[in-house]
Amino acid sequence: MQIREKIDILRKHMKENNLKAYIIPSSDAHQSEYVAEYWKSRQWTSGFTGSAGTLVITLDYAGLWTDGRYFIQAERQLEGSEIKLFKMAQPKVPTYTEWLCNSLSKGDTVGIDGRVFSISSFEDMEKQLNKKGIELKVVGDLIDTIWKDRPSIPKEKIFDHLVKYAGKSRKDKLDDIRKNMKINEAEYYVLSSLDDIAWLFNIRGNDVPNNPVVTSYALIALDYAYIFIDKDKVPESMVKELAIDSIEFKDYNSIDSILKDLKSTTIMLDPDKTNVWLYKSIDTSVKIVRELNLTTKLKAVKNEIEIHNLNKCQQKDGVAMVKFIKWLKDEVTNGKITEISATEKLESFRKEQEFFIEPSFDTIAAYKENAAMMHYKANENSNAELKPEGFFLVDSGGQYLDGTTDITRTIVLGKLTEKEKEDFTLVLKSHIGLAKAVFLEGATGSNIDILARRPLWERGIDYKCGTGHGVGFLLNVHEGPQRFSQVPNTIKLEPGMIITNEPGIYREGEHGIRTENTLLVKEKETTEFGTFMEFKTISFCPIDLEGIKASMLTLEEKQWLNEYHKEVYQKLSPYLNDEEKHWLKQQTREI
Amino acid sequence: MQIREKIDILRKHMKENNLKAYIIPSSDAHQSEYVAEYWKSRQWTSGFTGSAGTLVITLDYAGLWTDGRYFIQAERQLEGSEIKLFKMAQPKVPTYTEWLCNSLSKGDTVGIDGRVFSISSFEDMEKQLNKKGIELKVVGDLIDTIWKDRPSIPKEKIFDHLVKYAGKSRKDKLDDIRKNMKINEAEYYVLSSLDDIAWLFNIRGNDVPNNPVVTSYALIALDYAYIFIDKDKVPESMVKELAIDSIEFKDYNSIDSILKDLKSTTIMLDPDKTNVWLYKSIDTSVKIVRELNLTTKLKAVKNEIEIHNLNKCQQKDGVAMVKFIKWLKDEVTNGKITEISATEKLESFRKEQEFFIEPSFDTIAAYKENAAMMHYKANENSNAELKPEGFFLVDSGGQYLDGTTDITRTIVLGKLTEKEKEDFTLVLKSHIGLAKAVFLEGATGSNIDILARRPLWERGIDYKCGTGHGVGFLLNVHEGPQRFSQVPNTIKLEPGMIITNEPGIYREGEHGIRTENTLLVKEKETTEFGTFMEFKTISFCPIDLEGIKASMLTLEEKQWLNEYHKEVYQKLSPYLNDEEKHWLKQQTREI
Repeated sequence: MQIREKIDILRKHMKENNLKAYIIPSSDAHQSEYVAEYWKSRQWTSGFTGSAGTLVITLDYAGLWTDGRYFIQAERQLEGSEIKLFKMAQPKVPTYTEWLCNSLSKGDTVGIDGRVFSISSFEDMEKQLNKKGIELKVVGDLIDTIWKDRPSIPKEKIFDHLVKYAGKSRKDKLDDIRKNMKINEAEYYVLSSLDDIAWLFNIRGNDVPNNPVVTSYALIALDYAYIFIDKDKVPESMVKELAIDSIEFKDYNSIDSILKDLKSTTIMLDPDKTNVWLYKSIDTSVKIVRELNLTTKLKAVKNEIEIHNLNKCQQKDGVAMVKFIKWLKDEVTNGKITEISATEKLESFRKEQEFFIEPSFDTIAAYKENAAMMHYKANENSNAELKPEGFFLVDSGGQYLDGTTDITRTIVLGKLTEKEKEDFTLVLKSHIGLAKAVFLEGATGSNIDILARRPLWERGIDYKCGTGHGVGFLLNVHEGPQRFSQVPNTIKLEPGMIITNEPGIYREGEHGIRTENTLLVKEKETTEFGTFMEFKTISFCPIDLEGIKASMLTLEEKQWLNEYHKEVYQKLSPYLNDEEKHWLKQQTREI
Repeated sequence: MQIREKIDILRKHMKENNLKAYIIPSSDAHQSEYVAEYWKSRQWTSGFTGSAGTLVITLDYAGLWTDGRYFIQAERQLEGSEIKLFKMAQPKVPTYTEWLCNSLSKGDTVGIDGRVFSISSFEDMEKQLNKKGIELKVVGDLIDTIWKDRPSIPKEKIFDHLVKYAGKSRKDKLDDIRKNMKINEAEYYVLSSLDDIAWLFNIRGNDVPNNPVVTSYALIALDYAYIFIDKDKVPESMVKELAIDSIEFKDYNSIDSILKDLKSTTIMLDPDKTNVWLYKSIDTSVKIVRELNLTTKLKAVKNEIEIHNLNKCQQKDGVAMVKFIKWLKDEVTNGKITEISATEKLESFRKEQEFFIEPSFDTIAAYKENAAMMHYKANENSNAELKPEGFFLVDSGGQYLDGTTDITRTIVLGKLTEKEKEDFTLVLKSHIGLAKAVFLEGATGSNIDILARRPLWERGIDYKCGTGHGVGFLLNVHEGPQRFSQVPNTIKLEPGMIITNEPGIYREGEHGIRTENTLLVKEKETTEFGTFMEFKTISFCPIDLEGIKASMLTLEEKQWLNEYHKEVYQKLSPYLNDEEKHWLKQQTREI
C-alpha cells in the first residue's frame, strides 16, 4: 500500500470519528523508545524508519516531527510524499501541539490512541489545545484496521536474570519499592515501563530486538505482585520461582479490569511512563500519587556486583572491538568490505565473547558522508563499499548476561583531509573535556554538558543531540533518568550511575565523526566545600591516533589520552594473541 | 523587645488562631528581594539582617532557612536565640516545607500572611502540606500588632524616567504588552512586582533604599491602565503626563476591590510575582492566564539606547572605582581607614559622577576574614581597620539616570600568603572561564555556570551561591529572569541581556575573594550549525595584578587579562589626571 493510500483511508476514518487531526507517535503501550514491529504504526504509515518521530495527519496536511539525529534521514525518506518535515528544537519550528493550536479551529477535535500516549504528554497537550477550544480525545487505534498484515505482539519466552549478574534479588528490590510505597501511604504501584519491570523482577525476554525486555504491565501490592503478560511466554519453572516471593503471572489483557476493581485506595504511578488508556481505567475513588518511577532511579545507580560484572563485560567488548578494527585496517586494502559486511564481522567478534546475547542496538556502520546521518543504518541501496581513505564510523554495542555496552569509534581507513583531521581532533577535545570533568555533588547532566560542547562551540560547531545517556544492565541501551544535554534536567549524577560520552561533528555530504565511551560516576574527594565527583571511563578501545592533529591538543589532553591508552593496553592485551598485542601496542603508543 | 519575648507573643496569637506553625518570609506584598523597613518582619522577629531568609515558628521550635551567602552571618546573629539555622540547598537539609511536613501532624494548620507569599509558593507549599493532611491558611499579618514601633509604608515622590535614558516610551511598552494580551485572549493584566511596574510606566521612586522602585500595583486593560499607589507620592505634572496615555493613578488600597468587581473576563498574571491575598480577591468567574510577567523578559533585554547609556554609565563608575583604589593603596600605609570610612570614600567618588543618584545596594566592604561572609555589611562592632596586608573586598554599585552598576574588586593592600595568591588566581581563572564563553543560541545560565566553577571544582573548592544575576536599568541590582547558577533555569540568554560574572572563594576565618564584572550578551557568528553568542565585559576597572600567580594562568587567560586591561585604560584614562593615568597604566600593564 502506498503512503498516499494509507493516509487517505486514515482520513476517511478520521471523518467518521469527527476528527480534524490524528496523531501517531513512535511509542508502544509502555512508552518504550524501541518497540516491537507490532507497534510501528508511525513507520508503517509514513515510511520514516527512525526510532523517534511523531506523525500528525489533518484532513488536508501531514507533518512529521523528529529530532536532530534524524533530520537528514527523514528528509530523504519523506521525499515524494505529502508529509512535511518539522525539525524539532530548531529556532522558530513549532512543536506539533503548537502547530495544531495554530492550524485547527475552536470546536475541532484531535484524536489519539490512548495506549501510546503517556498521562503527562496527554495532559500537556490537552491543556494547550483546550486553551484554543480544541478537544483532545482518546479514540483508539485507527491504524489497526488499515494495517492488514500487521505483525503480532511478540511471543518470546522469558528467562530468570540470576542474582550473580543482577547483584540484587527481586525480593530485596520489592522491599525497597514497598518501603517507599509506605512512605507515600500507597497500597498499590502500577508499573508499565518494560525495562523497569524487567529490572524489578530480574526477568528478561526477547520481545524487542536488542532490548531484552518483556511486554508486560505490573501491579505491586504491599504483600503480593502481579505481572501481566502473555502466559505462554512464561516457563513453568519461572512461575514456581517467582511464586516464592508472592509474584503471580496474570493475563496481559486483564490489567484494566483488575485496575477497575480497585476502589478507595491509593495507587502510585509515573505519569511519564503510564499510558492514558490505563489511567482512565482507574476508578475515580482512587487517590493517585504521581512520582518518577522508583525503579527508574534505583536501576540507574548500578550496584557493586553490577559494576564488577560490567568491568569484565566492557573488557570483552573491547577485545571484540580491537579484533574488529585490526581486521578492518588489515583487510580494507585487499578485499571488498561494505558497511553491512563490516557490521556482520564485528558481530562475529562479539559472538566469540562469553555471555554475549545480541547487539544492544542496530549497529551504525557508516562510511564517509553516510556518517553525517547520526543514526544511519545501512541498507542494500545505501550500503557503501569501504576504501583505504577517509573515516568509517562504527557505533555498536552488545547485550551480555553481565552487562550492556555502547561504544563508537571513528576509524581512519587511509588518507584524510586537513579538515577531517581537525574535526576528529575537536571531537577528541570534546570527549576529553567531559571525561576529565570534576563536579560538585548535586550537579546534573545539563550543568555539565557544555564541557563537551565548549571546544566545538568556540569554532561555531554543534551536534544536534544530547552528549550522552544512561545505559541499562542487560537492558535498554538508552536508560534514564540521567542524561548529558542542554535541556534542563533535574537528575543529580550519583556514584554508580553510568552514562555515555559521545560528542560528534556531522557535516552533511562530507563526513561524520563521533568518539563514544561509557563513564561511571564516582566520588573523588570531600573537602570543606562539599563532596566532589569525577568520571571513570569504563570502555576500552583505542582512539585512532592517525586522526589526531597533535598540535591542537593541550598538554593535559595529551596526558589524558596517553593514560587512557595505557589502560586500554593493560586491560585488553591479556586476551589477545602476540600479533594482536603488537598491533594494540602501536595503536596505544604515547603521543 | 527581646527575640524571646516577640516569639512568645507570636505563639500566643498562633494559639488563638489555632495554628501549629507560622511562617515569616523576607518578602513584601510585591515579592521584592529588597524591601522597605515596613516589611522587615522576619528581621524584626529573628534578629537576622540578611536580605533572604524564612523564619518558621512552631509552638515549641523556631528555625531560620537561609542560603549560602548568609550561613556565617546567620550563625552569628542567631547565636544565643532559640532559633536554629537551616542551611538551604546543602545535602540532607530539608526545605522548610519538608521540615513542616515531618514535624507537624495530620490535622494541624500552618498560617501565613497572604500578602507576602506568591501564588506559586503558596500552592507548592499547600500541595506538599496537604499530602500530609496539614492545612495551609491565609490568616493575615500576626506580627503587626506585636511590632509597636513598626515603620510606615514609604511616602517618597515618584519621578518620570525620560525616554532619552529608558530608550522606549511607556506607550510603546504598553503596546507590546497589549499585543501579547490579545494573543492570550486576556482583557486585563495584573502587575505586582515593583520593578516591572517602574519599567513599564517609565516611573521611578525612592521607596526602597538602593532600589528606585515605587510601592504600587498595576492593572492594565486593553485601552487604559491603573497604577495603584499612595496618591500623595505623585506630582501633579506626572498625573497629567501619564493621562496622555490613558494611565490613571488609583489609591494603593483599592486594588482588591477593583479586582473583585471584574467578572467573567480573562486576567493575565505571573503566579511567581502576584501575592496570594490579591489572587484570592479575584472572582471565581474570571479565567486566569498564568505566565511569567511579559515585562520581566522585555526589560531583561536592554534596548540600544539603554546599552549606549550603560556604556557611559559603566565608564563613570569605573572612574570612581579607579580613583578609590588609588586613594586606598596610597593611604592605607598612612592613616586610619576602616571598612566604613572606605565605603564612604568610595561613595564620595561615585557622587562626583554625572547622573549619580545613590548606591545600587549596601556596599560590601570587607577586610580579610570579614570577606568570607559573602554579603557582609560592616557595622560599628565589626568595622575593621585596614592595614597594609591581605585582601580588602569591595562589592558596590551605583544607581545613575543612565544605568545601574555592580562591581567587585578584591584589592591587595600589602603582603599576601601563597594560599591567598593561589585563591585569587583561581577566582580569576573562574572569572575568565565565563567571560570567554561561547555558546549556542538557546543555552541558559545553568548550562553555562560550570565554566566559572570548573577551575575551582577541580581543586575541591566551591562558592555557595549563583555565579551571576541580571541587573536592572536604574532599577534593582538583582533582576531576573536570567541567572548563572547550577539550579535548572529555562531562560535562554539573549543578545541585549546583561548579567554579572562573580565567582569567588570564601574561607571562613581566613579570607574572601570575588572578582565581578558585568557581561553583555551579544551575537558572535552564525554558521551552518546555528547562531553562537558571546559575552562582552562592560565593567571597566583593573583586576589587581599583585594578587596573581602568573604561572597558574594559561596563555589564553593571560591574553584575556591583557586585552581587558588595555581596554580599561583606553576607556577610563580620558577622565583621569596625569597622576591617575600614570597609576592606571601601571595597574593595567601586560603580564
